[in-house]
Amino acid sequence: MKLNIAVLPGDGIGPEIVAQAQKVMDAVAVKYNHEIVYTNALVGATAIDKVGNPYPDETHEVCMNSDAVLFGAIGDPKYDNDPKAKVRPEQGLLAMRKKLGLYANIRPVTTFPSLLDKSPLRLDIVEGADFVVVRELTGGIYFGEKGRSEDLKKAFDTCTYTTEEIERILKLAFSYAGKRDKRLTVIDKANVLATSRLWRETAQGMEADYKDIEVDYMFVDNAAMQLIQWPKKFDVMVTENMFGDIISDEASVITGSLGLLPSASVGVHTSVFEPIHGSYPQAAGKDIANPIATVLSAAMLLESLDLLEEAKAVRDAVNQSLDAGVVTEDIAKDDNVSKTSEVGDWLANCI
Amino acid sequence: MKLNIAVLPGDGIGPEIVAQAQKVMDAVAVKYNHEIVYTNALVGATAIDKVGNPYPDETHEVCMNSDAVLFGAIGDPKYDNDPKAKVRPEQGLLAMRKKLGLYANIRPVTTFPSLLDKSPLRLDIVEGADFVVVRELTGGIYFGEKGRSEDLKKAFDTCTYTTEEIERILKLAFSYAGKRDKRLTVIDKANVLATSRLWRETAQGMEADYKDIEVDYMFVDNAAMQLIQWPKKFDVMVTENMFGDIISDEASVITGSLGLLPSASVGVHTSVFEPIHGSYPQAAGKDIANPIATVLSAAMLLESLDLLEEAKAVRDAVNQSLDAGVVTEDIAKDDNVSKTSEVGDWLANCI
Ligand SMILES: CC(C)[C@H](C(=O)O)[C@@H](O)C(=O)O
Ligand SMILES: CC(C)[C@H](C(=O)O)[C@@H](O)C(=O)O
Repeated sequence: MKLNIAVLPGDGIGPEIVAQAQKVMDAVAVKYNHEIVYTNALVGATAIDKVGNPYPDETHEVCMNSDAVLFGAIGDPKYDNDPKAKVRPEQGLLAMRKKLGLYANIRPVTTFPSLLDKSPLRLDIVEGADFVVVRELTGGIYFGEKGRSEDLKKAFDTCTYTTEEIERILKLAFSYAGKRDKRLTVIDKANVLATSRLWRETAQGMEADYKDIEVDYMFVDNAAMQLIQWPKKFDVMVTENMFGDIISDEASVITGSLGLLPSASVGVHTSVFEPIHGSYPQAAGKDIANPIATVLSAAMLLESLDLLEEAKAVRDAVNQSLDAGVVTEDIAKDDNVSKTSEVGDWLANCI
Repeated sequence: MKLNIAVLPGDGIGPEIVAQAQKVMDAVAVKYNHEIVYTNALVGATAIDKVGNPYPDETHEVCMNSDAVLFGAIGDPKYDNDPKAKVRPEQGLLAMRKKLGLYANIRPVTTFPSLLDKSPLRLDIVEGADFVVVRELTGGIYFGEKGRSEDLKKAFDTCTYTTEEIERILKLAFSYAGKRDKRLTVIDKANVLATSRLWRETAQGMEADYKDIEVDYMFVDNAAMQLIQWPKKFDVMVTENMFGDIISDEASVITGSLGLLPSASVGVHTSVFEPIHGSYPQAAGKDIANPIATVLSAAMLLESLDLLEEAKAVRDAVNQSLDAGVVTEDIAKDDNVSKTSEVGDWLANCI
């Protein structure tokens, strides 16, 4: 099979970690007889610095022509905490989501036994947690009309959702649940918001089509509590954009393995695979960043192209590296610390 | 001093727990020579059942004429999970907030040493956490224009904020920080929302007036993570209505003492004091509910009327009951379990 992969390394540690994922994918290509063509493109602060736009048209073209996008991370301190800055890296991210129609962000949250002692939760609470957060990514208050009154003393944001938008992501969530433990939690604020009531009605209307899935509904404030109290009770959670931003980030820290968690943003035109963690600028260029989350994102990428055996080989390699203690300093148990590039080499070798 | 207290017991365990807080306040009145006049009024499902309205006009009158409102809890399973029900208990809550101008919800989150083993967080992470969440309560997406398109296939909610609304609550938050560790975290989503940018600009503009307060700004997704990872780093957090709903509920479970946490909703006309926990219908009428959160809400009530010594006496009594193990079954360490009414009697005796 021939794969066209767009590679958007982005800022900070992005280039280093993406390079390791490519090494691993190259090893997969050799072993399973695929051809991978990579096309690099600019995104984020790097793109602002070079061409004045965090998601340039050329980058969009590269993505549109790809089977999948491998993404690093974006964000640079010089643009942080400055809500008034004219162009910000995040705008590139939002433009990319909208233009590629990346309507669903998928975040599997799993625990790694060797990392459980890094969890802020008690072992008995978190051990064995294994769920997926499905976040709507191109609608809601992120993309609704927004602005300021003329005297600047009043601001507004609008959250909108259509039945179609809601059905599309719920279908995806139901299908994830179908492949897992067959339980779906729809998170909303239907006791307050009109959009949430539309979400709930739409989901209720779809229940009959998925008789094997057990659906429950939870208010977002309650979900924020239960995620900490009983993370093991969840299988698939699905929610709108803003709630998903909060809930999926909350979910990502409970296992202590934030640095290892991958994500997929499923799109209409192509899909984007990236680690959950940020661009970690302090570590950039030092060959110390943990590449595992990006490597596992590559596994999700392979899976999305139905290369299931290949994806499994990548996951197995990751588990072996963790068992063997071939890891970067952030998760090392002793003085035995590997560099970013060494972990990448080791994983590629394992394939 | 003569105190006019509106008493709104509400649903479920509401009447039982409020009765204990009244016992304690009565003991305070005797000891410190005050006169307390209580006026009871209907709210919640009870009010729907009796007069068809979860926040009847008569109740509003009683509140308007009070120095403070002591509130139990509302919510009845028969109205739950039915977003289409015509009248719901929550609507009473929202109407009360709006009509009484309860613009700020204050939730102190403290740890109780004897309860730390109930926390879902690791002891070293949570021990010593002590912060206050200040949530805006009468604005934002809760009260903005909302609705459905004619064909019912599209819904919208509007979030609005004015400089005045933001300044009012920030003032309160700054003043709380001034009385505590002088650190204020403003939580928003200024990288996405116009209303959040107004919040951030307004807060930045006020910094000069509060030179002794260290202010930092945090995106809500980041706050949802840090609250679990480093709860001890926070002193006062302030945020808008919807974010506050999620963040304050998340905050309330990290210490393992949800059943003990009080709250105040500060208003333009009067203020409302109530436990954070809900109406716990399964326990209603059994004399087993934990009255501590309501008793501590009464302490906040006394404080709000500048009865500081009186408030301290109530808190001291609570600490003594915890030390002595005079507690309800939910937090009992052994077979030594007290009834709701027994805890109330013991506390009143302690004053
Ligand atoms: C950077 C920001 C706009 C973005 C979001 O809120 O979606 C980020 O927090 C994320 O979750 O990818
Ligand atoms: C019942 C509901 C409307 C309410 C809210 O969202 O404000 C509740 O969750 C709360 O926090 O008091």
